[in-house]
Amino acid sequence: MINFQTSPEQYKHWKLSIDGAVAKLSMDVQEEETLAEGYKLKLNSYDLGVDIELADAIQRIRFEHPEVRAVVMTSLKPRIFCAGANIYMLGTSSHAFKVNFCKFTNETRCAIEDDSRHSGRRYIAALNGTASGGGYELAIACDEIYLVDDGNSAVSLPEVPLLGVLPGTGGLTRLVDKRKVRRDRADVFSTLAEGLKGKRAKEWGLIDDSFPTSKFQDSIDARVREITQAVSLRHDAGIKLNPIETESTNDARNYKYVSLKLYRDKRYADLAVRGPEAKLPASPDEIQKLGDGYWPLLTYRELDDALLHLRVNEPEIGLVCIRTEGNIDNVLAVDKTLTVNRDHWLIREIILYMARTLRRLDLTAKSFFTIIESGSCFAGNLFELVLASDRSYMLNNPDEKIKVALSELNPGAFPMSNGLTRLESRFLAEPKKAYEAFAHESGFDTEEAEAAGLVTFAPDDLDWDDEIRLAIEERTSLSPDALTGMEASLRFAGPETMDTKIYGRLTAWQNWIFQRPNAVGEHGALTNYGKPTQAQFDFRRT
Amino acid sequence: MINFQTSPEQYKHWKLSIDGAVAKLSMDVQEEETLAEGYKLKLNSYDLGVDIELADAIQRIRFEHPEVRAVVMTSLKPRIFCAGANIYMLGTSSHAFKVNFCKFTNETRCAIEDDSRHSGRRYIAALNGTASGGGYELAIACDEIYLVDDGNSAVSLPEVPLLGVLPGTGGLTRLVDKRKVRRDRADVFSTLAEGLKGKRAKEWGLIDDSFPTSKFQDSIDARVREITQAVSLRHDAGIKLNPIETESTNDARNYKYVSLKLYRDKRYADLAVRGPEAKLPASPDEIQKLGDGYWPLLTYRELDDALLHLRVNEPEIGLVCIRTEGNIDNVLAVDKTLTVNRDHWLIREIILYMARTLRRLDLTAKSFFTIIESGSCFAGNLFELVLASDRSYMLNNPDEKIKVALSELNPGAFPMSNGLTRLESRFLAEPKKAYEAFAHESGFDTEEAEAAGLVTFAPDDLDWDDEIRLAIEERTSLSPDALTGMEASLRFAGPETMDTKIYGRLTAWQNWIFQRPNAVGEHGALTNYGKPTQAQFDFRRT
Repeated sequence: MINFQTSPEQYKHWKLSIDGAVAKLSMDVQEEETLAEGYKLKLNSYDLGVDIELADAIQRIRFEHPEVRAVVMTSLKPRIFCAGANIYMLGTSSHAFKVNFCKFTNETRCAIEDDSRHSGRRYIAALNGTASGGGYELAIACDEIYLVDDGNSAVSLPEVPLLGVLPGTGGLTRLVDKRKVRRDRADVFSTLAEGLKGKRAKEWGLIDDSFPTSKFQDSIDARVREITQAVSLRHDAGIKLNPIETESTNDARNYKYVSLKLYRDKRYADLAVRGPEAKLPASPDEIQKLGDGYWPLLTYRELDDALLHLRVNEPEIGLVCIRTEGNIDNVLAVDKTLTVNRDHWLIREIILYMARTLRRLDLTAKSFFTIIESGSCFAGNLFELVLASDRSYMLNNPDEKIKVALSELNPGAFPMSNGLTRLESRFLAEPKKAYEAFAHESGFDTEEAEAAGLVTFAPDDLDWDDEIRLAIEERTSLSPDALTGMEASLRFAGPETMDTKIYGRLTAWQNWIFQRPNAVGEHGALTNYGKPTQAQFDFRRT
Repeated sequence: MINFQTSPEQYKHWKLSIDGAVAKLSMDVQEEETLAEGYKLKLNSYDLGVDIELADAIQRIRFEHPEVRAVVMTSLKPRIFCAGANIYMLGTSSHAFKVNFCKFTNETRCAIEDDSRHSGRRYIAALNGTASGGGYELAIACDEIYLVDDGNSAVSLPEVPLLGVLPGTGGLTRLVDKRKVRRDRADVFSTLAEGLKGKRAKEWGLIDDSFPTSKFQDSIDARVREITQAVSLRHDAGIKLNPIETESTNDARNYKYVSLKLYRDKRYADLAVRGPEAKLPASPDEIQKLGDGYWPLLTYRELDDALLHLRVNEPEIGLVCIRTEGNIDNVLAVDKTLTVNRDHWLIREIILYMARTLRRLDLTAKSFFTIIESGSCFAGNLFELVLASDRSYMLNNPDEKIKVALSELNPGAFPMSNGLTRLESRFLAEPKKAYEAFAHESGFDTEEAEAAGLVTFAPDDLDWDDEIRLAIEERTSLSPDALTGMEASLRFAGPETMDTKIYGRLTAWQNWIFQRPNAVGEHGALTNYGKPTQAQFDFRRT
């Protein structure tokens, strides 16, 4: 079982050091400390374990070190920044693992850009040696890239020429869409195994600058000083992210506010979220004192962990039924607190993290049905779970009104990868319905929710059990691959962004290539990399 | 060898009739008239042969019948409009063929929307019976959809529940992006094998209306009358599209203005385009008289045919080297004529067709290099070939100036699928370079072209032969699958549109599914469709 929880004391591959407004993240991958057998992490190459640490470090900088304004990514290995994802790990992994590995590393890189865009921290890739493949893709997720000019170090994307696969962690997309490298130059660069060094790399826009070895550290330091001097420094103290507590049995995984119950023989899981208690602190100071025990933060950390666990450790679960229990007014009170204080650094970070977790859900290759019953509290931020689901079922019980409600957070706080809110995305055909729903006072009972277009089906209590049972049985009988492709197509209507291009176009092509004989077959390039045998291609173009 | 040329007299599956401003395209697929062995085209299901006729009919309406303002698509079979792509054809086709089949059918549906958007013809899907799968996808490419209400007929996308693949001809994307069907409803509809009938189909936005059998024809006629009465009728006579002449040998395919020379052992082809003669007619009347012999129309028809031929009949050709020969001034003179007269219906149709052909090139899964040598005429519309290529090489010969040039057509006439011109797409990082290039007078010699960023490399005459030879050898040695995914990612920087979503996201996922064991393996759903055996899935989600 893969564990996504870690902390700096446990890091094996990264060193996180903080010096005033500057954080330094130094990569020093330990060859033997792999997640699985059969490969060594040479040359700062990485596996999922390395990236779990990186994701944790970025998250901790945001919550534990709000004073940080610049993050320098570098390596402790001489002449090598990072060689990218470990090829032997890829070569020995199952198709499903490769796909989930790439998805997680993509989310980590998008989290870097999310921090830069929304929290204003500037990420500097200080390439003290060659950055190849995923190494350059990590650099290109940063705001600025500086390469040492030692006559040898280069940036490169050697996946196509050497491995017969794509740079699958956003590299191709960020090349032409973020750094806006001319497409013919991007074509040359992406087929050139040895990559490009200082002068030409800069001319083509692949890096921002290069400095000779003797001046490299000074130049990076000077640039970092420029950055920290140009922004107003922050003197907030952070909060500590303690380990989240989990109780696992064979068919359940329970956190404080989130529970996962697995019906493996039926290929579905129940994911239940408990709403907040009444009268939670309403001022940022009190919340800061409460720290990581504050309901929104702890609940979304638990939800995030549950989603990652489902993706990687429970591949046969095809459908997740989302339920909530609790008091709607308590959820709305929390949302009110978050809304009122959204300019406070901690509240902002909490909201941004909730948004990232919800995007993680959007990008999870499982079907999601929301089940809205008596005692549920699908309101405000928890109503996003309804909107993020592929379908929702709301019980229509004449004897007991069930309610859902929106809050001030629904119309903007949690954008999807496509830049729209889930309400906007839902009502593309009739944008005014999103406004009407938001303007509606005091929640929606089942009939109102159905009329407002907020839920898919509203069966009455006589049909309810059968309808839910049938819906689950039907969904879990369908081809899991067809569902993955279908959901990836239907979930992201409307505009596309760099993120959706990475998760849609680039990832889908990579997944295609990841099962082609030319990559993973007996004679494929990925299979034969580093062996005395040569790849042999079937040259028919598809 | 598959032949993409046809004409109404040769149609087997469609009847095209014209009555004043109304064209009627009636589908009447002949079961036995298949392109390959092993399947029958029952229930108006289609194979590539059926779609080649449809593409031809739409093209002919535009050129031969400019008076047509409404196109009614219907079926001559009782109670069935169209059952979509033939499943047994898909089940027995190679992966590469399935992919190319879907690409062509997608281009045909985009051509319908292109006609509607730019030439103002209104397409009416008159569903006199059930439209399932590709049948509904054909309907959803039309502007309006009317379904007969006979208690039985439905619209449906049964691919996911019955076949374990996606509706791959744009259906999922058009559902949420064109018709803006709510995503939870799209999810239900796309997993419901039997589909939806009149009332609910209308309520969910899947159709525009339904009419009882007794009133169906009258209602369609009335709607068509409304359309033709609301627009100003046209009285232009069309021009005839005669068969294009081809001379083929084992390693060449020659047209009047286009030649294809195949180096199959080296896996590349030379595609040469000859520029126009001097003093071509400059007025629409003269051009109309000249008809389909007019250089731009004939050349792009030949180019279009050559691209389709390369895609489907020459799978091992991985690289196409584009060359031109002719006089730059003659090309610019043609572009001037086209620009000045672009509001004339025929000139507009010619320009729109050139744009579609160039988009066909963008979407072709082959590498394209442009080779710019002495005697070439890469100017104006032919310069789009340089911009559409993955790379370009321009000879730098001090003894003889070689030139390229832009025309008034480059900054707008030929948008890519992403809505940008190829100049805009090239200069995403520095938009002003596109303006500067356009403002530059009297063409660019090699050094100017390189400085302006218009070509990739400008080797001198000493290095030229080696450099081109090496570039070709290197490109054709790479994994063809990795190149396909790479090119599909690098060619479409910038915004995404419904078209790019269909060719990128949706198609890439479908291609992935098209090689998954759950679809095409021994126990896959596509393999077992219609057999007494049942599909058995590996339920692990990827």
